[in-house]
Amino acid sequence: MEKQNAPIGVFDSGVGGLTVAREIMRQMPTEEIIYFGDTARVPYGSKSKETIINFSRQIAAFLQSKDVKAIVIACNTASAFALETLQSEIDIPVIGVVKPGAKTAAQTTKNNRIGIIATEGTISSNIYTKYLKQIAPKAQVFTKACPLFVPLVEEQWLYDSVTIEVADRYLSELRAYDIDTLVLGCTHYPLIRHTIQKVMGEKVHLVNPAYETTKELHQVLEEHQLLATRDVMDKINHRFYVSDGSDKFRMFANSILPCQVEEAKAVSVEQYAVSGKEERL
Amino acid sequence: MEKQNAPIGVFDSGVGGLTVAREIMRQMPTEEIIYFGDTARVPYGSKSKETIINFSRQIAAFLQSKDVKAIVIACNTASAFALETLQSEIDIPVIGVVKPGAKTAAQTTKNNRIGIIATEGTISSNIYTKYLKQIAPKAQVFTKACPLFVPLVEEQWLYDSVTIEVADRYLSELRAYDIDTLVLGCTHYPLIRHTIQKVMGEKVHLVNPAYETTKELHQVLEEHQLLATRDVMDKINHRFYVSDGSDKFRMFANSILPCQVEEAKAVSVEQYAVSGKEERL
Repeated sequence: MEKQNAPIGVFDSGVGGLTVAREIMRQMPTEEIIYFGDTARVPYGSKSKETIINFSRQIAAFLQSKDVKAIVIACNTASAFALETLQSEIDIPVIGVVKPGAKTAAQTTKNNRIGIIATEGTISSNIYTKYLKQIAPKAQVFTKACPLFVPLVEEQWLYDSVTIEVADRYLSELRAYDIDTLVLGCTHYPLIRHTIQKVMGEKVHLVNPAYETTKELHQVLEEHQLLATRDVMDKINHRFYVSDGSDKFRMFANSILPCQVEEAKAVSVEQYAVSGKEERL
Repeated sequence: MEKQNAPIGVFDSGVGGLTVAREIMRQMPTEEIIYFGDTARVPYGSKSKETIINFSRQIAAFLQSKDVKAIVIACNTASAFALETLQSEIDIPVIGVVKPGAKTAAQTTKNNRIGIIATEGTISSNIYTKYLKQIAPKAQVFTKACPLFVPLVEEQWLYDSVTIEVADRYLSELRAYDIDTLVLGCTHYPLIRHTIQKVMGEKVHLVNPAYETTKELHQVLEEHQLLATRDVMDKINHRFYVSDGSDKFRMFANSILPCQVEEAKAVSVEQYAVSGKEERL
């Protein structure tokens, strides 16, 4: 196979990254995706940097065994903790969702008051604030970890009085800070954006990093002369892999993707540890 | 070391099983515990049987490498899915929390109407209902999965209006069934028993399987002549291991255990896969 028409590897702790895969399918319809959801070890947001780097290395090794031409880390926590490690260890382009999300927020804000909501891991890494200080030195950044949002999304209580009360509890601080831009810093959160918008008020602009991440992916592939050369009418065979073989992933994927997911194949991803890297842990 | 004074291995998906470890320390103060919390892969409740068996095998192999004399599966989901497998593959006693919980419920109920609340995995396994039908054929069993209880406990919203509303949503069905006994079929749930009691009403008896599990452990060790022979005043060295090395586990352990936990050592448990067993997966 020509290198240009090799698939793009996309991974996440579970189903959340499908919101990124969906955006890639929409903006780049000639690209083929190999998606890996780490459903056996989800969630990532409450776990340590060492654990997330270890998991990310295994998944990257698995994706490389499928000859991907680039890897998108479609999970904010893994992007926060493991992007630099993977970029330094792997010789294909690796893209995270945090930098593009920060960039969009910097371009969007008018009053230079930006809120970030994400998992505990992403917030404690301080990575959004760090990037924003680089690209928008005047911006004031206010952050809040929202650990119950992921389980509420997985319970599918998307438009629910409990979800509204939890959102109100988490977001009241950010409301008080008069932010005009709020980054949805976890790929699950776009699925409850209506509730978040309601609680924050219509004037606050919500940033979903998936859109800008896909634009960056396009640019990086172009720079490396790796954009797919196939025709938009050619058959595309997206493939989906998970670490836990239950049927829930496939049902969730079919509810949000524009393509039909016939199968999500279970793989033992821990067997793909990069040899020679283990000792560093 | 004499076999009798070897430690007891106790494992759980995370911190929940510490409620069982606490009960063992209370009822059997001369026994030493090696605890493993699978904090890198928590929670278990939403994952498949195959995944949970795979994880449980790795953990059992790790505990056996520490020369434990018996293993307590202090997690309802792992007890539901992996108890029989471990019992058939391992030559030391293995005890789960489900059978003792079911036994207590059968002895407690007066109107033969028993409720079970647990994770999705435990409920879908139907294992509590199966045991109860064997030991109390007249009992009617009503079950309800409560997936948000574990994240609410981990967020430490133990006495909270959101937790009360979520509990009310989950438990209203069971209230309508006029049960007089409710099994807390997940080791996290005893930590919100006050909220559950409030929502169910004072007349409903809550069963915490930890108490009866420890009684069964005592009996099984006695039958195998494996009860510790050391003196109650001898120094006991409980040890704690986790798969994710963050400090949260240790802090949580110190908040609920009667002993001081100085260290929870991180181990890569997936390396302890039992050789020759992998192919069966």
